[in-house]
Amino acid sequence: MKPSFTLISLLCCFCTLGCSSDRLASWNDGASKQAIVDFVDRTTSTASPDFVPQPERIAVFDNDGTLWAEQPAYFQLLFAVDRVKALAPNHPEWNQREPFTSAIAGDLEGLAKSGHKGVGELLMVTHAGMSTDEFAQIARDWLRTAKHPTLNRPYTRCAYQPMLEVLEYLRSSGYKTFIVTGGGVEFVRVFAEEIYGIPPEQVVGSSIKTTFESANGRTFIKRLPEIDFIDDGPGKAIGINNRIGRRPVMAFGNSDGDLQMLQWTTAAQGPRLGVIVHHTDAKREWAYDRSSHIGKLDTALNDAPQQGWIVVDIARDWRTIYPK
Amino acid sequence: MKPSFTLISLLCCFCTLGCSSDRLASWNDGASKQAIVDFVDRTTSTASPDFVPQPERIAVFDNDGTLWAEQPAYFQLLFAVDRVKALAPNHPEWNQREPFTSAIAGDLEGLAKSGHKGVGELLMVTHAGMSTDEFAQIARDWLRTAKHPTLNRPYTRCAYQPMLEVLEYLRSSGYKTFIVTGGGVEFVRVFAEEIYGIPPEQVVGSSIKTTFESANGRTFIKRLPEIDFIDDGPGKAIGINNRIGRRPVMAFGNSDGDLQMLQWTTAAQGPRLGVIVHHTDAKREWAYDRSSHIGKLDTALNDAPQQGWIVVDIARDWRTIYPK
Repeated sequence: MKPSFTLISLLCCFCTLGCSSDRLASWNDGASKQAIVDFVDRTTSTASPDFVPQPERIAVFDNDGTLWAEQPAYFQLLFAVDRVKALAPNHPEWNQREPFTSAIAGDLEGLAKSGHKGVGELLMVTHAGMSTDEFAQIARDWLRTAKHPTLNRPYTRCAYQPMLEVLEYLRSSGYKTFIVTGGGVEFVRVFAEEIYGIPPEQVVGSSIKTTFESANGRTFIKRLPEIDFIDDGPGKAIGINNRIGRRPVMAFGNSDGDLQMLQWTTAAQGPRLGVIVHHTDAKREWAYDRSSHIGKLDTALNDAPQQGWIVVDIARDWRTIYPK
Repeated sequence: MKPSFTLISLLCCFCTLGCSSDRLASWNDGASKQAIVDFVDRTTSTASPDFVPQPERIAVFDNDGTLWAEQPAYFQLLFAVDRVKALAPNHPEWNQREPFTSAIAGDLEGLAKSGHKGVGELLMVTHAGMSTDEFAQIARDWLRTAKHPTLNRPYTRCAYQPMLEVLEYLRSSGYKTFIVTGGGVEFVRVFAEEIYGIPPEQVVGSSIKTTFESANGRTFIKRLPEIDFIDDGPGKAIGINNRIGRRPVMAFGNSDGDLQMLQWTTAAQGPRLGVIVHHTDAKREWAYDRSSHIGKLDTALNDAPQQGWIVVDIARDWRTIYPK
């Protein structure tokens, strides 16, 4: 097999020389794009003192607000709301009880008023009580038909084109790309492979408890209405350690929920890159940070200069936002 | 890149035709070897009705008793015993208290008498209270110097040569190989890449709780003396679903602790293969099954014929046991 590997290496070299800038075609030329390209170059060139062997090239990505949009609410919550609407005819008792009345009315503000407890109840009712296969099918069906309320496009087309290019660029540079999301791991896995090219086994996320069931020669795993693991904040560093087992070389996030993931990635020896996607584009996307209820970005934005984290300014750095 | 992929495919085809039998050189010709080779052929040949697309080619392996030996006790327990001996000078109180007195005396039977509670205490004392980096270094140092008590070779050379060949054969056939172990995930990760060619992110295992800590610009993850997840029995099916997120196509185990992993793998549509390594060779290895305290194999052995699981008979099927 050696001759073919040599051939591939040669082809890759030619391609790197000729195409590296095109690979980030939706990024405007500037410091952010340059920082990413430079980092990839110096960690993948064997002549570089910062060369990272391929097995150690782990890059982790938050999902909501980093790989796809997260406004006006996390898409998984919008899925839960649509699911409550679909199930409502069989649950007349929901018509007079929050958070269900707000959900059925599509009233996100009313839903928010029900607090963590209300939102948690909504999530458990819509995410538990079925097998993992059944849940995946429900989520798949929803993604196939549902549209974003204001962007008027399927949620699967609300991924950020510049980030899709980063994922592909890193993989073609020998990086293994992982999602590390506060969202439900079994929800994100339904679309991660198709949208991002990230297989299920490279998605780390929050989870609920499950049981293994065997009956009549069939087996299934049942989803229980009980939290198992919250992959957010310090949970992201813990999840990375527990599921991936290596310190990442690169981390991409957009909120304070990604703070410890950025710290865990970059506060280590060797070359490391932390990147924050800063939502600054009210015209083409949304503009929010320190005071937002969704994707709050405050401490991590303060820490970025001292930590050397790259802050991507969407309005300035991204030529296009969504795939065509 | 297309031309090079075509070239690789061609080269792979030639190699498959010429080398597939040699790839399992430590296996005697017979039904077990044939069943594995036939299954790989029909799941990887595009002309086969049982063809499995490459991303779905997931193969899972138990570790203790399947990929390496597990007698006279799980090697991780022998590590804990050695660790207690090393720490004993700083713990005079251990000299008069079980399970420590047995551990310090190297008395495995005495240790067994202390039951789950005693063994659990021994594991927590030796596996928790330090950072994950420190723990990995302690385990790495032990593996570098310790020797198996009767085989008189490093533990890292107590892997089964025929299984090393299966791992390599499957990977060269486009399978992604995972360890799914009842052992500690952070212990197994220390050697899985070097011995088995399985990277940390493809090891699923039992774990203890951890916390993320940040101090003086440094970050670390601290190991706590509290069980987080037991990846054994039904836990193996749950762990596979939670960490890998796909049903495996092939599963290899050796005990009733692998029963649900075998069920979860093979009780599904499409081609599936379950393999049980049966320890039948008292002369070259060990012979044990239904009444063993370690690696008890009873229900899974009963179920194997009806389930169509291959039962590998070590005495009959393996030409050699350990690497040279």
